[in-house]
Amino acid sequence: MRLRHKPWAAEKLQSYPQYVTQNPQDFKGKWQKRFAKDQPIHIEVGSGKGQFIIGMAKAHPQINYVAIELQTSVAVSILELQLAEELENLQIINAHGGDLSTFFQTGEVSRVYLNFSDPWPKARHSKRRLTSPKFLSQYQTILNSEGDIHFKTDNMGLFQYSLASLSQYGYVLRQVWLDLHNSDFEGNIQTEYEEKFSTKGHPIYRLEAYLPTKD
Amino acid sequence: MRLRHKPWAAEKLQSYPQYVTQNPQDFKGKWQKRFAKDQPIHIEVGSGKGQFIIGMAKAHPQINYVAIELQTSVAVSILELQLAEELENLQIINAHGGDLSTFFQTGEVSRVYLNFSDPWPKARHSKRRLTSPKFLSQYQTILNSEGDIHFKTDNMGLFQYSLASLSQYGYVLRQVWLDLHNSDFEGNIQTEYEEKFSTKGHPIYRLEAYLPTKD
Ligand SMILES: C[S@@+](CC[C@H](N)C(=O)[O-])C[C@H]1O[C@@H](n2cnc3c(N)ncnc32)[C@H](O)[C@@H]1O
Ligand SMILES: C[S@@+](CC[C@H](N)C(=O)[O-])C[C@H]1O[C@@H](n2cnc3c(N)ncnc32)[C@H](O)[C@@H]1O
Repeated sequence: MRLRHKPWAAEKLQSYPQYVTQNPQDFKGKWQKRFAKDQPIHIEVGSGKGQFIIGMAKAHPQINYVAIELQTSVAVSILELQLAEELENLQIINAHGGDLSTFFQTGEVSRVYLNFSDPWPKARHSKRRLTSPKFLSQYQTILNSEGDIHFKTDNMGLFQYSLASLSQYGYVLRQVWLDLHNSDFEGNIQTEYEEKFSTKGHPIYRLEAYLPTKD
Repeated sequence: MRLRHKPWAAEKLQSYPQYVTQNPQDFKGKWQKRFAKDQPIHIEVGSGKGQFIIGMAKAHPQINYVAIELQTSVAVSILELQLAEELENLQIINAHGGDLSTFFQTGEVSRVYLNFSDPWPKARHSKRRLTSPKFLSQYQTILNSEGDIHFKTDNMGLFQYSLASLSQYGYVLRQVWLDLHNSDFEGNIQTEYEEKFSTKGHPIYRLEAYLPTKD
């Protein structure tokens, strides 16, 4: 994500400990304590400026949301939206989503959202894709047995890769959309990238996947 | 497939028993006898006029091909191409591909091709789709342990359905193409429908799937 450097961003994030955890590992297994209500936790990895997760948190008060965004200068935009809304079901982590199992206990999470994740088109960078096996294994660890992954992107290469990667890892595709905006999908909340790329005429791809319970 | 009625077609098919089997169930477990060489068998269900399977049989003499086409007036076009080529690695079945396990022995087939299968867009007709569970179970029975399914279509609804249906049945996606003609896939042989719909600007979708060996 292109961004202006914001030297004050780190300090601003630190000023709102009620919304932004500096030490997410301290809450492993205890995330419910950070929310007003004890209810399912959905996380988004790579939230960008937060339009999606703020919109979801407003639309679904019966879910607790955690936004995870690596870049400090971007994560601060999520905080700014949150300061306007003061949602009691939204928390922010400014950290790398590769360490999810240090942040969350096994089974603590009910859903992982991935939206317009960086495509890393070069084959030699495929391990950085958020749907590569190392990440899928992290999601498997933190998701409960009913848990699932919801992924959308306009990037054809990343979507092709992700369908095969999830399938080969053992995830099952519950449903696939190859043109989300011309489908009957209801309640879609657009991300910043989604608005930008759908305006350019790109179809938006989406999938939902889960791990079958071993028998 | 739109077609002219050809009252002479059934008779013509009967006149070439070396290429067209009237009783495919008689060859269950014995298909190699109908070919010049004992080599892997790939079948196509719904071959249409046969451009794809004839092209494949010419390009891959080390594979034995069986074209299966339900409609007599269409199957006769495959025969006509075959009469011009006299390929010793091509056989034709004019029958319904829902009875595959009465035609082929368990493990007798190495690959199933499905190309531009009828989409049956209405939900209540989903059981007629060639990637619905009943058909997938037939393919599972006749495919050997290394066997796979190769499917292409321009129909978005059918492709979305098929990705989820294969995955939920237990098939694993080896690779997915969301725009075959603008990919680096090599050796693509176009079907009649593929030529027609790609000219109209439709992207061509493709997938390869296999059943993991149980451990
Ligand atoms: C292409 S942007 C998309 C942002 C937003 N989801 C959207 O759809 O508009 C990807 C975002 O993911 C963040 N990101 C990339 N890898 C990450 C990781 N491993 N952990 C957390 N965030 C990450 C980037 O900093 C960037 O803000
Ligand atoms: C839409 S056409 C596509 C033909 C060809 N594969 C192509 O791509 O040009 C589908 C064909 O499948 C045949 N077909 C449909 N269901 C079938 C079945 N259960 N068994 C055998 N053939 C079938 C139809 O008769 C028709 O010729």
